[in-house]
Amino acid sequence: MRVRNKPWAKENIEAAPQYVVSEPEIWRGRWEERFGNTQPLHIEVGSGKGQFIYGMAKAHPEINYIAIEIQQSVLIDILDKQLAEPLANLQILHVDGGSVTDYFSPHEISQIYLNFSDPWPKSRHAKRRLTYHTFLKGYQEILPPEGELHFKTDNRGLFEYSLASFSQYGMILKQVWLDLHASDFEGNIMTEYEEKFSAKGQPIYRVEAYFPAKK
Amino acid sequence: MRVRNKPWAKENIEAAPQYVVSEPEIWRGRWEERFGNTQPLHIEVGSGKGQFIYGMAKAHPEINYIAIEIQQSVLIDILDKQLAEPLANLQILHVDGGSVTDYFSPHEISQIYLNFSDPWPKSRHAKRRLTYHTFLKGYQEILPPEGELHFKTDNRGLFEYSLASFSQYGMILKQVWLDLHASDFEGNIMTEYEEKFSAKGQPIYRVEAYFPAKK
Ligand SMILES: C[S@@+](CC[C@H](N)C(=O)[O-])C[C@H]1O[C@@H](n2cnc3c(N)ncnc32)[C@H](O)[C@@H]1O
Ligand SMILES: C[S@@+](CC[C@H](N)C(=O)[O-])C[C@H]1O[C@@H](n2cnc3c(N)ncnc32)[C@H](O)[C@@H]1O
Repeated sequence: MRVRNKPWAKENIEAAPQYVVSEPEIWRGRWEERFGNTQPLHIEVGSGKGQFIYGMAKAHPEINYIAIEIQQSVLIDILDKQLAEPLANLQILHVDGGSVTDYFSPHEISQIYLNFSDPWPKSRHAKRRLTYHTFLKGYQEILPPEGELHFKTDNRGLFEYSLASFSQYGMILKQVWLDLHASDFEGNIMTEYEEKFSAKGQPIYRVEAYFPAKK
Repeated sequence: MRVRNKPWAKENIEAAPQYVVSEPEIWRGRWEERFGNTQPLHIEVGSGKGQFIYGMAKAHPEINYIAIEIQQSVLIDILDKQLAEPLANLQILHVDGGSVTDYFSPHEISQIYLNFSDPWPKSRHAKRRLTYHTFLKGYQEILPPEGELHFKTDNRGLFEYSLASFSQYGMILKQVWLDLHASDFEGNIMTEYEEKFSAKGQPIYRVEAYFPAKK
């Protein structure tokens, strides 16, 4: 995601530790304490400006959400939404999605979302894709058996790759959509990228997959 | 596939037992004898008029092929191709793809093709889809461990269903194409349906999946 440099971002983030968690590793295994309740916890990796996760948090107050975003220049747009209308069930982490096991203990997360992840089309960059097996290993560790990963994208190459990657890792495809907006799927909350690409007429791909219980 | 009634079809088929095998069950486990060599054996289930399987047999003389088609009114078009220019590595079976284990012994088939199978869009007809789990069980029995199924279709609903069906059955997706004709896939041989639907601008979906060795 190309973004303008925003020198004030760091300052704004540090001024809002109640929303952007400053030492996330200390909450590992204790997120229920941080949220003050025992609701299920869903995370999104690569939230961008946060339209999806903020919308989900608003629509589902019975679930806790954590937005994970590595770039502070886009993360501050999630913070802006929280500052304008704070949601008690949404927290923001400025960390790398490749390190989720540093911030969450086994089974602590009920569901994971990936939306319009960077495609990294060149094969030699495959390991940077958020659906590469090293990332899947991290997701598997923090989810319970049969824990689900929900992934949307407009990017054909990334979706083709990801279906095979999930399957080859041992995940099971629960359901696949090859044109989400033409389907009867209900309750879809659009991301920024989804609005942009679907407006151009591109089909939106979606998959729900899960890690089966280990035998 | 809607077809005209062709009263002469039965007669023509019976007149060509060297191409359309009249008692296929007697060759179970002995197809090498029938072909007169030990080449790998590939089958297509639901060959229609046979453009694909005839083209494959012509392009790959080092592989034996069997076309399986349940409707004699289209099967005779495969026979016509054989009569016009006979290929020693192609045989035709007028049988139901749901009964492959009656005609092939375990591991006798190296690869299976499904092309533009009837979509049966209504859920209550799901069990008629050639990618329903009861069919997969038959395919698995006649393939060796890691034996592959290659499936092409233009039908979005059937492809969505089939990816999930394969995965839930325990098959692994080796590679997925969401727009075969826009890809760098080489050696594609078009089926009749593929020509028709791709001419209308519809993307052609393709998947290669395999049955892993049993643990
Ligand atoms: C293409 S944007 C999509 C944003 C948003 N999900 C949407 O659909 O509009 C991908 C986002 O993922 C973030 N990202 C990429 N790699 C990441 C990683 N390893 N950990 C966390 N975020 C990451 C990028 O900074 C970027 O904001
Ligand atoms: C939609 S047509 C596609 C034909 C061809 N494969 C193509 O791509 O042009 C599907 C074909 O599968 C055949 N078929 C359907 N169910 C079958 C079954 N259980 N066993 C064998 N053939 C079957 C039909 O008779 C029909 O000819």
